[in-house]
Amino acid sequence: MSEPFDLTACDALDLMRQRKMSVVELVRSCLARIEALEPTIMAWTVLDADGALKRARRLDEEEPKGALHGLPMGVKDLIDTADMPTEYGCPEIFKGWRPMVDAACVTVAKKAGAVILGKTVTQAFGCGAVVKTANPLNVDHTSGGSSAGSVAAVAARMAPLALGSQSASSLIRPASYNGLIGMRPSMNLINGAGFKYFNGSFDTIGLIARTVDDVELMWTSQVDIPFERGQLLKRMPRFAICRPPWLDNAEPSARAAIDAAERKLKAAGCEVRELVLPDGYRSLVEAHEKMQEFEAARSYAWEYENHRDALDPKVTAIIEAGLALPFEKYLEYTLFAQRARNEFPALLGNSDCIVTAAAPGEAPKGWRALGERFITMGDTTQSRAWTLLHLPVVSIPCHRGPNGLPVGVQLIGPFGADLHLLRAARWAESACRDWT
Amino acid sequence: MSEPFDLTACDALDLMRQRKMSVVELVRSCLARIEALEPTIMAWTVLDADGALKRARRLDEEEPKGALHGLPMGVKDLIDTADMPTEYGCPEIFKGWRPMVDAACVTVAKKAGAVILGKTVTQAFGCGAVVKTANPLNVDHTSGGSSAGSVAAVAARMAPLALGSQSASSLIRPASYNGLIGMRPSMNLINGAGFKYFNGSFDTIGLIARTVDDVELMWTSQVDIPFERGQLLKRMPRFAICRPPWLDNAEPSARAAIDAAERKLKAAGCEVRELVLPDGYRSLVEAHEKMQEFEAARSYAWEYENHRDALDPKVTAIIEAGLALPFEKYLEYTLFAQRARNEFPALLGNSDCIVTAAAPGEAPKGWRALGERFITMGDTTQSRAWTLLHLPVVSIPCHRGPNGLPVGVQLIGPFGADLHLLRAARWAESACRDWT
Repeated sequence: MSEPFDLTACDALDLMRQRKMSVVELVRSCLARIEALEPTIMAWTVLDADGALKRARRLDEEEPKGALHGLPMGVKDLIDTADMPTEYGCPEIFKGWRPMVDAACVTVAKKAGAVILGKTVTQAFGCGAVVKTANPLNVDHTSGGSSAGSVAAVAARMAPLALGSQSASSLIRPASYNGLIGMRPSMNLINGAGFKYFNGSFDTIGLIARTVDDVELMWTSQVDIPFERGQLLKRMPRFAICRPPWLDNAEPSARAAIDAAERKLKAAGCEVRELVLPDGYRSLVEAHEKMQEFEAARSYAWEYENHRDALDPKVTAIIEAGLALPFEKYLEYTLFAQRARNEFPALLGNSDCIVTAAAPGEAPKGWRALGERFITMGDTTQSRAWTLLHLPVVSIPCHRGPNGLPVGVQLIGPFGADLHLLRAARWAESACRDWT
Repeated sequence: MSEPFDLTACDALDLMRQRKMSVVELVRSCLARIEALEPTIMAWTVLDADGALKRARRLDEEEPKGALHGLPMGVKDLIDTADMPTEYGCPEIFKGWRPMVDAACVTVAKKAGAVILGKTVTQAFGCGAVVKTANPLNVDHTSGGSSAGSVAAVAARMAPLALGSQSASSLIRPASYNGLIGMRPSMNLINGAGFKYFNGSFDTIGLIARTVDDVELMWTSQVDIPFERGQLLKRMPRFAICRPPWLDNAEPSARAAIDAAERKLKAAGCEVRELVLPDGYRSLVEAHEKMQEFEAARSYAWEYENHRDALDPKVTAIIEAGLALPFEKYLEYTLFAQRARNEFPALLGNSDCIVTAAAPGEAPKGWRALGERFITMGDTTQSRAWTLLHLPVVSIPCHRGPNGLPVGVQLIGPFGADLHLLRAARWAESACRDWT
């Protein structure tokens, strides 16, 4: 048998349910893995080894019936936890802060039996310039952001599951950098209570794991529906391959990832068509960015008014851009986004989902030295439009870039079709299995 | 001159800007008013008299240029304040809780010069069964809920302005009970950071004052646009009178309020037509209620899992109804609401806004003894559909019920047309001026 930390969540769950492995064994294995790798990876802001083991022992005394029974999980530090410090990536202001209440997604995960190992690294408020976490696939490269620690923890097999979030590209992009499956569900279907409010218009709790099965396990446990492992769409899925105008901001490997996915999906017998976005879609990227700035200026108003000197310069820049944007423009962008959301089903037609680049390329190198704007974690453009449209997204690794690091595609379905999307994504996961 | 506490916000602001009245004088007057009436009204959970006077003295040393310079304000206790306890209407769990950060709407108001006098009473999490606040117009009647203390404070002239919130009918209904102007802006245009998350789908910061001018003063200061007092639509407004099917849940005085508004608007020369809602609208009420329960079950999951015995029985009932609702139904309601939102502009046609009942009648009597469900604060149905649709709403008192208490109408405009709606509401305010 491989080490317990090597198991996917679904495999570990099967063993624990059959009492062939205890929760304590799994948690101990993950904690040992963390102890070995954390000095290099730097994925965690807080680790609660004692608490996790105590909980593991209690779970071992219970019937293993929770949907996430005994599964170790990391929680991004933009998400509140009552029993662990929550610093929102900004210890300069929030050092040791203890919220009163667990975030909704944390309470739901705990109730389903998850074992929260600790809090994972993110940059300041999910939009600061620097993040210290290394990419476990090559520690000279970044793990990306803002769900940096959550993706690194899962990629390094410190935990099979992690909670992240996405308000622009903060989950799908780092999932791609780390060769993982990331899911950004339809906006607001996972309850956002206890997330450090950034954008009321976009904030979404996201899910990170190593397989589509494991992501679906998390998704179904969050919305409280039964989980059935390995479910595929009952017919061949129909994919709409999309090379948006903003692909020009990406490296050649992002385009190569789309080409690879198209080729592999065709070879697997899936129906594949080319989808050309309407001209107006180009403006969605700008609309997202400007709305994000406008909202951040209000969401972080207290921090800006009371602790300006302690703020990451990129956070300050976003706030000040937002303060400079007239309300009328914000309202225009908001109405434009609403129209685009309404029109999306017609654009998708009878395809199950769009397939496009999940990231601007491989994980950038040398990120620890703060470089030019956008250099450190890579361009955010590939996700902005889809985030703005509130659509469910699942990312799949499918290609290797020139440095040997993964580049993924993201599958984007219509609002509310999250389960359908996961079942189409399993086809893509299977078709692209040979990316490594 | 009348007492400073009697002044509207706009009148007080004019005097302070002309240095004919100091901020200290106004704040002292409001504090004296509170001291006199609070034992009967019970509008406040926390009063920070020393802090308010200190801030008033500092403001008197500055140029009076803030949009809300020196204006006393109450803040509903579902809204975070870093410098005052925030108990979310549930001291059983949150006694003395001090959030780290002011809510966005509080920071923006402070930055504009407002003087926060204290926190105002609400029931547990905005949805509990009991609230102690009396109606200043007749203390044997309730002030309504959940923005109970905020409306009572403004109606009793303890403060000219207050922040409230609405996730169902929590602002418009009590504004009607207290003869005030209430505004529930288009969803999410006032930043919701720091509001105790109830419904990601509906939570909206709301504004309470005694005149449309004062509400518009608050609105413009929140979204940072210039305020111009007394602006009317440049042409006669077009009103669509609506007697929805759920008016059957209301008392005759609610229907009488609509009749009165129709008559008065016609007499004022406004264009008035009858609007019959499509059949499907009846289901919006159910959709709102079910979505609210589903979301509350997650938003308050931590409280339910960890402090069940401390919860108000109505909160528990809402949570348990939400836990019993299948996700598929929640998703169906969500998609139905999206479609209805898209169709609203066509329904409204060339009218500026809908006019319908703001409350189920006068403020109920004898609310202090916890009676049957929904008896204590009155039926919520009149607002649920409009809240679900994310539309901006302004309520105007226009009629007196059999007990001599006010009954209002609410004006409902298309999403984003908040300023236009306020300028139509001024016509209605003027036409209905004789309601008292």
